Amino acid sequence: MAVSSNVRFRDVVMRGHIIDSLALPKAWGVIMDLGGNFNVTELEIGRTKDDQSYVRMQVIAPDARTLNQIIGALLRLGATLPDEQDVVLRPVEVAGVLPDGFYSTTNLPTEVRVGGRWIPVEDIEMDVAIVVDAADRAALAGPTSVSMASTGTATPIRAFCLPMDEVVPSQQVVVGHQGIRVTPPERARGKEVFGFMQSSVSSEKVKTLVIQTIAHLMTQVRAEGGKILFVLGPAVIHTGAAKHIVSLIRRGYIQVIFGGNAILTHDVEAALFGTSLGIDLKTGEPVEGGNHHHLRAVNTIRRRGSIAAAIEQGVLKEGIAFEAYHHGVDMVLAGSVRDDGPMPEVITDTMKAQRRMRAALKGVEMAVMVATMLHSIATGNLLPATVKTVAVDINPAVVTKLADRGTHQAAGLVTDAELFLRELDAALTLLESQEVAAKAAKAAAEAGIQSARRQAAATSMKS
Amino acid sequence: MAVSSNVRFRDVVMRGHIIDSLALPKAWGVIMDLGGNFNVTELEIGRTKDDQSYVRMQVIAPDARTLNQIIGALLRLGATLPDEQDVVLRPVEVAGVLPDGFYSTTNLPTEVRVGGRWIPVEDIEMDVAIVVDAADRAALAGPTSVSMASTGTATPIRAFCLPMDEVVPSQQVVVGHQGIRVTPPERARGKEVFGFMQSSVSSEKVKTLVIQTIAHLMTQVRAEGGKILFVLGPAVIHTGAAKHIVSLIRRGYIQVIFGGNAILTHDVEAALFGTSLGIDLKTGEPVEGGNHHHLRAVNTIRRRGSIAAAIEQGVLKEGIAFEAYHHGVDMVLAGSVRDDGPMPEVITDTMKAQRRMRAALKGVEMAVMVATMLHSIATGNLLPATVKTVAVDINPAVVTKLADRGTHQAAGLVTDAELFLRELDAALTLLESQEVAAKAAKAAAEAGIQSARRQAAATSMKS
Amino acid sequence: MAVSSNVRFRDVVMRGHIIDSLALPKAWGVIMDLGGNFNVTELEIGRTKDDQSYVRMQVIAPDARTLNQIIGALLRLGATLPDEQDVVLRPVEVAGVLPDGFYSTTNLPTEVRVGGRWIPVEDIEMDVAIVVDAADRAALAGPTSVSMASTGTATPIRAFCLPMDEVVPSQQVVVGHQGIRVTPPERARGKEVFGFMQSSVSSEKVKTLVIQTIAHLMTQVRAEGGKILFVLGPAVIHTGAAKHIVSLIRRGYIQVIFGGNAILTHDVEAALFGTSLGIDLKTGEPVEGGNHHHLRAVNTIRRRGSIAAAIEQGVLKEGIAFEAYHHGVDMVLAGSVRDDGPMPEVITDTMKAQRRMRAALKGVEMAVMVATMLHSIATGNLLPATVKTVAVDINPAVVTKLADRGTHQAAGLVTDAELFLRELDAALTLLESQEVAAKAAKAAAEAGIQSARRQAAATSMKS
Amino acid sequence: MAVSSNVRFRDVVMRGHIIDSLALPKAWGVIMDLGGNFNVTELEIGRTKDDQSYVRMQVIAPDARTLNQIIGALLRLGATLPDEQDVVLRPVEVAGVLPDGFYSTTNLPTEVRVGGRWIPVEDIEMDVAIVVDAADRAALAGPTSVSMASTGTATPIRAFCLPMDEVVPSQQVVVGHQGIRVTPPERARGKEVFGFMQSSVSSEKVKTLVIQTIAHLMTQVRAEGGKILFVLGPAVIHTGAAKHIVSLIRRGYIQVIFGGNAILTHDVEAALFGTSLGIDLKTGEPVEGGNHHHLRAVNTIRRRGSIAAAIEQGVLKEGIAFEAYHHGVDMVLAGSVRDDGPMPEVITDTMKAQRRMRAALKGVEMAVMVATMLHSIATGNLLPATVKTVAVDINPAVVTKLADRGTHQAAGLVTDAELFLRELDAALTLLESQEVAAKAAKAAAEAGIQSARRQAAATSMKS
Repeated sequence: MAVSSNVRFRDVVMRGHIIDSLALPKAWGVIMDLGGNFNVTELEIGRTKDDQSYVRMQVIAPDARTLNQIIGALLRLGATLPDEQDVVLRPVEVAGVLPDGFYSTTNLPTEVRVGGRWIPVEDIEMDVAIVVDAADRAALAGPTSVSMASTGTATPIRAFCLPMDEVVPSQQVVVGHQGIRVTPPERARGKEVFGFMQSSVSSEKVKTLVIQTIAHLMTQVRAEGGKILFVLGPAVIHTGAAKHIVSLIRRGYIQVIFGGNAILTHDVEAALFGTSLGIDLKTGEPVEGGNHHHLRAVNTIRRRGSIAAAIEQGVLKEGIAFEAYHHGVDMVLAGSVRDDGPMPEVITDTMKAQRRMRAALKGVEMAVMVATMLHSIATGNLLPATVKTVAVDINPAVVTKLADRGTHQAAGLVTDAELFLRELDAALTLLESQEVAAKAAKAAAEAGIQSARRQAAATSMKS
Repeated sequence: MAVSSNVRFRDVVMRGHIIDSLALPKAWGVIMDLGGNFNVTELEIGRTKDDQSYVRMQVIAPDARTLNQIIGALLRLGATLPDEQDVVLRPVEVAGVLPDGFYSTTNLPTEVRVGGRWIPVEDIEMDVAIVVDAADRAALAGPTSVSMASTGTATPIRAFCLPMDEVVPSQQVVVGHQGIRVTPPERARGKEVFGFMQSSVSSEKVKTLVIQTIAHLMTQVRAEGGKILFVLGPAVIHTGAAKHIVSLIRRGYIQVIFGGNAILTHDVEAALFGTSLGIDLKTGEPVEGGNHHHLRAVNTIRRRGSIAAAIEQGVLKEGIAFEAYHHGVDMVLAGSVRDDGPMPEVITDTMKAQRRMRAALKGVEMAVMVATMLHSIATGNLLPATVKTVAVDINPAVVTKLADRGTHQAAGLVTDAELFLRELDAALTLLESQEVAAKAAKAAAEAGIQSARRQAAATSMKS
Repeated sequence: MAVSSNVRFRDVVMRGHIIDSLALPKAWGVIMDLGGNFNVTELEIGRTKDDQSYVRMQVIAPDARTLNQIIGALLRLGATLPDEQDVVLRPVEVAGVLPDGFYSTTNLPTEVRVGGRWIPVEDIEMDVAIVVDAADRAALAGPTSVSMASTGTATPIRAFCLPMDEVVPSQQVVVGHQGIRVTPPERARGKEVFGFMQSSVSSEKVKTLVIQTIAHLMTQVRAEGGKILFVLGPAVIHTGAAKHIVSLIRRGYIQVIFGGNAILTHDVEAALFGTSLGIDLKTGEPVEGGNHHHLRAVNTIRRRGSIAAAIEQGVLKEGIAFEAYHHGVDMVLAGSVRDDGPMPEVITDTMKAQRRMRAALKGVEMAVMVATMLHSIATGNLLPATVKTVAVDINPAVVTKLADRGTHQAAGLVTDAELFLRELDAALTLLESQEVAAKAAKAAAEAGIQSARRQAAATSMKS
Repeated sequence: MAVSSNVRFRDVVMRGHIIDSLALPKAWGVIMDLGGNFNVTELEIGRTKDDQSYVRMQVIAPDARTLNQIIGALLRLGATLPDEQDVVLRPVEVAGVLPDGFYSTTNLPTEVRVGGRWIPVEDIEMDVAIVVDAADRAALAGPTSVSMASTGTATPIRAFCLPMDEVVPSQQVVVGHQGIRVTPPERARGKEVFGFMQSSVSSEKVKTLVIQTIAHLMTQVRAEGGKILFVLGPAVIHTGAAKHIVSLIRRGYIQVIFGGNAILTHDVEAALFGTSLGIDLKTGEPVEGGNHHHLRAVNTIRRRGSIAAAIEQGVLKEGIAFEAYHHGVDMVLAGSVRDDGPMPEVITDTMKAQRRMRAALKGVEMAVMVATMLHSIATGNLLPATVKTVAVDINPAVVTKLADRGTHQAAGLVTDAELFLRELDAALTLLESQEVAAKAAKAAAEAGIQSARRQAAATSMKS
């Protein structure tokens, strides 16, 4: 922080839904917890739910180090400095190693101040670095750790996220807290879709209402052209719920699927043998020798070389992967150390898998994570806070972990994978039929109007 | 045990499905675990699934005490003694206190040998005493702890279970292990209804198959005149599943309901205010002041004096209690120390509640326990092993505890209460429509036959 | 609420730690969620952690009913009305039935305004009614539901809690929200004892630190003469942790024990047979026939008539009940419908048990609840928010339920009962030895001073 | 299976602890479940716990396919065919693809019959293929899928496991069930170490007894030169238990550690900053900015290039990795898709990680898995059933999954990571001190004897 060592007070400003989001009282708590104090010099509280609030306060600390800590914490809560300066940049010296003091991101919308202008950080995700780049690299050059305040040119400047292992020498990385602006999350107020799901993770809730809300949200996201991601664990297959995923894919509700070797293996096992982990999906009974079906399924696909080849050769004729192939769903499968095989599609290098997942997340506006902890946490790490996220698992610990992302866009549901997907499928069907009926009614009404008009026209012509 | 102190070997016999039920290998394991040994002197293994097996073996022990222990353990596994003698009885001396050495029951079908005859023990349940009674009390008299071998008269003799706190002086209680015969549970083989549910408690199964099986079993039990018990926790109301219970009551699938103060309170709250614990069941959102609706619900019923009065006065117009009242369902509500109110119907004395529950269990052949640990365990304690039992909870620990009753008639299902009941309701509707269709088809076919017959008759008349 | 039907705005005041406790932002959220709005007319924020804050605001609503709802909600958050009037009282007409509109309590410190004076409500607990009583009953008489504003006499007036089933005709019960003042909970700030336990219920924490904090708190409570309550489940016995409870009793850390039939039964089983549920506590192995030891334990005590008699007759010689008897610990055991026996000490009527528990809670300032859901929830219902509460269970769902009491005095710990009690025992021993050492050091220092003084005196005398 | 198509019966033999292990009754159950039948032609039951049992029976099936299925299932239960022939081998044609009909392994000791001799399969693990190899490759050549019966030479023949993705063309892989012999697991009888841990996974047990048993087992394994593997999750660090792992490493109880990026990251974070996930391990309180310590820890090590370099440069001075480095513990860290960084030591390719784990397992005779699901399951997949395995987690679902490996060498413990490791550390210290005392006593006794001898010698010399 560029705070001179004998400064012990500083003005900060917070604006937005700082009451609803609890950002303001949290800020006050943080100041005092860290041993500081404050004077509120201006306070304006939004009157309506769309109004924003505004507070300006002077933060006081016993020493510069404490002040620094407090300011850092307040910036993460969305505070800004009225006397803000540009971000401080330092170059990467060794590939895969960040400069000391690097700023690590939150998953909230973030801007950095470069050359006096606020630039949004692209592809925001949690716990990565921010790289600032310019077409004219010279614009960013200069002595280590100087600000870019002098950049008055029209050089297009970009700021984007990079994980530690991807930075390369000479890239300019943001360090410290200066020149960074984070937009705090807003609490949904009133009847907004996630409103009633926020309160807490509970197994004692009216699930069908929640599921109808999710269905409604999905249709909204799709209507606006957003992509929907499903993260799927193998229990989706074991519980016989694959048919609902198939139905959702066919009807255009899934654009991206994340998972691991298990979901694909059991999906293929079900398609080839009618079993999942050796249990007959029609009768629920174990099939003799069935405990090796999953290995045979993997071997069969490995022999063909890929899922695509197996489909084209007529070996694989149904299931989630089959539908995903035919409907252009982007299926990214990340390997794990417990995998058997694995399937050729599985990305065994976990860092490569992360990169593929990041790429597939472009345009994703909603994520539904069902019955998988590993892949859901991995996905959660990569998602911006603005993506609407639903975590479904029968284990409350998993749901709590996933839903607790410091954002009001995440909702958790402790329930059964199969019954959840069955209800979701049904709820979407209902919404569609209502829409069709509404359209038909509208068309009929319009037809009626036109007919009336024609009649009127005819009549007027007559007269 | 009436084994003389220097006897160190004894013959035992096991018969029945002792292979399938693992009773025989368990017996062998027990003998050796306890430090004994054995010779198999006869062994006949059933060839088909209906054939019974038979084994006779000589058990050897290093001393009489060990032999005694081993024999006791084998009898619990269903072994019998070829040289069996009558049970030993001792009188109760103090009300509510059993004689020393009292035999405590399993929940398996049990017989006692009195006067040389095997008499079935009525109302078998776990962990209680067996009382032997005769119309002619003198028949059972005599010096303390002698057997009844001399009873050759036609006096009708009864053996029945009594919990410790209900025994009264002079009742004759079975002590030791002599003269007791337990029928070990059989493992369902092949396609029997509970076959595929036995393997283990798991959340990763094809739930709809399991639920269809349960639905099928319910129609069977009802077709044969058996009663079905539902044990219900308040989550049934919170999750909006009450309507499915109502539907099941109306269609005759529920004869007995067990629960506590909470299920009734929230059922009435839902009927009066449309909320459950203050959450609006239509919208899923909290209602201001709603966290006190449950107290107001209780107070309202207390003011009327009873649920029946509230129904008759038109105050209570819907819900589970309302339907139970109108369809003659026996609703037994046992209080607990965490209750608010409670409702007038709630039996606050836990021992009285147990007695009412025992009485209500007459004729019950199937029990479905949903989302309640306390009342389900209490019910499980009272049920004979022969009652088909299904335990449904979202917490696997609860399901494991309930389903693990040393019987093959119990199945556990880790899932959501609402989605389970919704599916069960739907599965029963499907079965009914199939039955209706089958009947219609049969009627049509018969009509066809009759018409053909008439035609044939007409034709023959003609000729 | 006595708000005339065309009033649509009203002033409310909040004071205290309304920032830290989030009471103020919650209040703002509530106002807007319920469709109202507000103007902050005065705001003063406490500078130090001991300073209180103050806000006065005008609440505006579209109609009187909404205003009423908002004011009710704000009062529960600790707001007061500057133009506050006396509480409204209505008499009980039927025993066990409250008047319509009765106010149901929170577990926070509460005062009611009677005759212009604020009177604290005694024995506050959640979800009960407030009765106002005066030595001079006439003082409270008058037309139904008038306020007591005229009571200017010196009649001592009391306000206390009563559960619904204990009210009797003519008692005066508080109705509506008028004249009631609730003190919102304060968030512990800085290094306070419960500070770091508040954040959340987690199994991934430094448990020994938490346990040391609890031990420290226990010594504080005892040093100030407060009582400590332990609520115990049978797992305390099964896991072999009884010896730590015994040690705590002997050293004066436990004054009250709550539990059920199971804890006593298994405690006696362990004392008589060395087993718990038939498992040998020395070897961890099952004992043949041991699964009936618990019934034999119950029967043995029933034969003696009571635990006290069994101790006096030398039958029961060790264990928790034995120590409790000898150290005057008040052990209240509430029955439940799943009980076997039960033990003579068990109160089978759940409402009577609640009353005994309430009586035993006088003077209790700390509660430690270990491995029991039923009795812990029952206890939580009865405890004021000011009692420091620790909930320990290996099941996170139980801990979450218990620790989530809308207070900063409750902490949850997901861990093993035995290992928790072992560590707690050890932590208390350590604290004691430190105290002894400190005293010894102080004594030594004082002795040194005295010796020096004496020497000085001697020296001075010499001179 | 080389069973001709019209054969419908076949003799099988089972020998060993087939009663205790339930292998025999399971075999009978399987025969009948699959629609077959059987005649027991010989039966000999072991009299003592060391005696083996023997059964010969004729299996009858309605058709050859069913017989085939039954025989396959029986072979997995340890049955052998008296008319057994050599294994059938088929060559790998495509790298990473197994021949059709490949035999997939169990984790039980397995032999294959080659050239009439039974050869043990090396490095047995679950769900992989068996490759048979000979120094003289020609010995294995010949037409596809013929047996090796003709191999009468002295060519040393090896059989070993290979996972699917490692097979290369021309390797000979076992197909079908012929010529394979599996040794069924034995049930520990009597007082054997895992005896009392087997019964079931439970949180209601005397944990300290279990932990003492584990400690004892660890000293035994070490005394016999076996290696001990610990699989560690990050909760070990979060809960402050790292110091116990350090103590175990120093005292030689840990030779191999498996884990992921998280355990190393938090270990280094604790060493560099004294925090774990930003929580101060000394105070339990969050440190401002501490939520980024883990990234800074990773970055610090990446800058040095490796843990080893960081240690040698004096940057890393304590913790698990530090001790492992100094005591030659083999630490294998497998990456996962949720990793940040990762640390340079982490193997990001999951298949490479499996290979490194397999290599590190040589000589491991005991595995203790603490607080990690992913890495524990991965480890469980690779371990032979003969390795004694202890799974510790606070989540019962994880423990059940890990302990349920069809073997009597696995035990589960539902408890807290820190308290478990603390107790284990203490139990090992106690055992050591007992051993020291015993040695001292023995030395003293021997010294006494020698002294006596010397004296006697002196005396005899005198005489």
